[in-house]
Amino acid sequence: MNFSEIVNQIKIKKSYLCIGLDSDIEKIPNHLKNLDDPIFEFNKRIIDATKDLAIAYKPNLAFYESQGFSGLISLKKTLKYIPNNIFKIADAKRGDIGNTSKMYAKSFFETFNFDAITLSPYMGKDSSLPYLNYDNKWIILLALTSNDSSLNIQHFKNNNDKKLYQHVIEDSLNWSSKENTMYVVGANRLEEIQEIRKIVPYNFLLIPGVGAQGNDLREISLNSINDNCGIIVNISRDIIYSDSSTSFELKVRDKALEYQNEMESILDKKGII
Amino acid sequence: MNFSEIVNQIKIKKSYLCIGLDSDIEKIPNHLKNLDDPIFEFNKRIIDATKDLAIAYKPNLAFYESQGFSGLISLKKTLKYIPNNIFKIADAKRGDIGNTSKMYAKSFFETFNFDAITLSPYMGKDSSLPYLNYDNKWIILLALTSNDSSLNIQHFKNNNDKKLYQHVIEDSLNWSSKENTMYVVGANRLEEIQEIRKIVPYNFLLIPGVGAQGNDLREISLNSINDNCGIIVNISRDIIYSDSSTSFELKVRDKALEYQNEMESILDKKGII
Repeated sequence: MNFSEIVNQIKIKKSYLCIGLDSDIEKIPNHLKNLDDPIFEFNKRIIDATKDLAIAYKPNLAFYESQGFSGLISLKKTLKYIPNNIFKIADAKRGDIGNTSKMYAKSFFETFNFDAITLSPYMGKDSSLPYLNYDNKWIILLALTSNDSSLNIQHFKNNNDKKLYQHVIEDSLNWSSKENTMYVVGANRLEEIQEIRKIVPYNFLLIPGVGAQGNDLREISLNSINDNCGIIVNISRDIIYSDSSTSFELKVRDKALEYQNEMESILDKKGII
Repeated sequence: MNFSEIVNQIKIKKSYLCIGLDSDIEKIPNHLKNLDDPIFEFNKRIIDATKDLAIAYKPNLAFYESQGFSGLISLKKTLKYIPNNIFKIADAKRGDIGNTSKMYAKSFFETFNFDAITLSPYMGKDSSLPYLNYDNKWIILLALTSNDSSLNIQHFKNNNDKKLYQHVIEDSLNWSSKENTMYVVGANRLEEIQEIRKIVPYNFLLIPGVGAQGNDLREISLNSINDNCGIIVNISRDIIYSDSSTSFELKVRDKALEYQNEMESILDKKGII
């Protein structure tokens, strides 16, 4: 999927919602657990209930890998089930030397057919370049994450008061573009997201941390949206585990619709739709 | 495996050799390719030929994941085949928030039975703590890696001239110990490894970059060994792809023996054996 296709989907669906498929066998509704592939069955119902509201899905690899081979089968079936016009993000946070990154790129972009992968920037551009050889595929670099301890590292400052995460973003501008690179910025980083927008006014930002993590959708959106929307907000637990009854899909849809409505109102206010 | 068991193995085998099982289906000897599970058959022969010379094996996950499900089956069989007294490192370079790290820890330490996993430090201690809940299991934090572009990030300096990788190591000292944490330092970082030893005199360092990457084993060893040896040097391509004939195991053993002999002489010179 290329840049303008993503922007189009946002305008068509009036939504910049990404749903995190962090599907944990211990948390899914009980009635699914006796089926052949409970994780896939869970994901399938989530996708059916939300595919007109979400512009992206983001499975975190850890949830699938921890289930061994069967987890990867569930993942592959899930990827196949997601409609083509929806952006598919592998939340994998990989980052290795070039030769090895090439193998990961093959795995995620070819075997699984993801559109994008999250990457750790610690080893520099070598870990990113092999992914950028694929047309219409994306890397999403960790920049300023939402977890508590991240600031111990990401706020490490040079003698010009430049923070590591700012340096990471600036460094990436030398070898990437808004057509193939996004950045992860936590929804709790409200004070800094405007500074990030100055460095990357046109790139998409992937924003986790709304919902269960308690941050406000409207506030972070109004501080980071650009003319093409330019943000994708991920919500996982607050949507996918909103109910555990046999009709959980209805509650899941309600929750997703609630977020989509709020996003529509924000996009409208910003003159994007 | 705990700290003193590793030190014991080093003394018994007179070796601190780790063999990187970066087993690529396109590079293994042709005569193995028609077997049921070529990657496992390749690894099995490498292990048989070197298990008295190596104290650790380190499969890089990318090589297995890129083969899909069959790759993970090869990996699981390989892990089972490695003798118990040999240290098993998952070169996975993961790094995610706590809840997700917990899932990865389960996958690597329980499903696959690895002894250690390499981690990216970019998200701070949250990504490491879940792994440290396991007794006798290890994290190996990326500190100063050997790839070209790493310095753009890892040499980012604060106003006291402290570099990011030094800060990463120092930060980790607040929540880890020499009994559960090692650091990756590239063999080409000769000038800095003595500085690193000042910060972590007692921790093990995992050193890649000898062999195909052209750095000298003796020089990096003499600059980093401590009283318990304290280093594990990884060699991958230079050993595992040293020959592609039907008797490649012999050449593999010769190569590993050459490194072990050199290591024995260094350990002897340092008074460790």
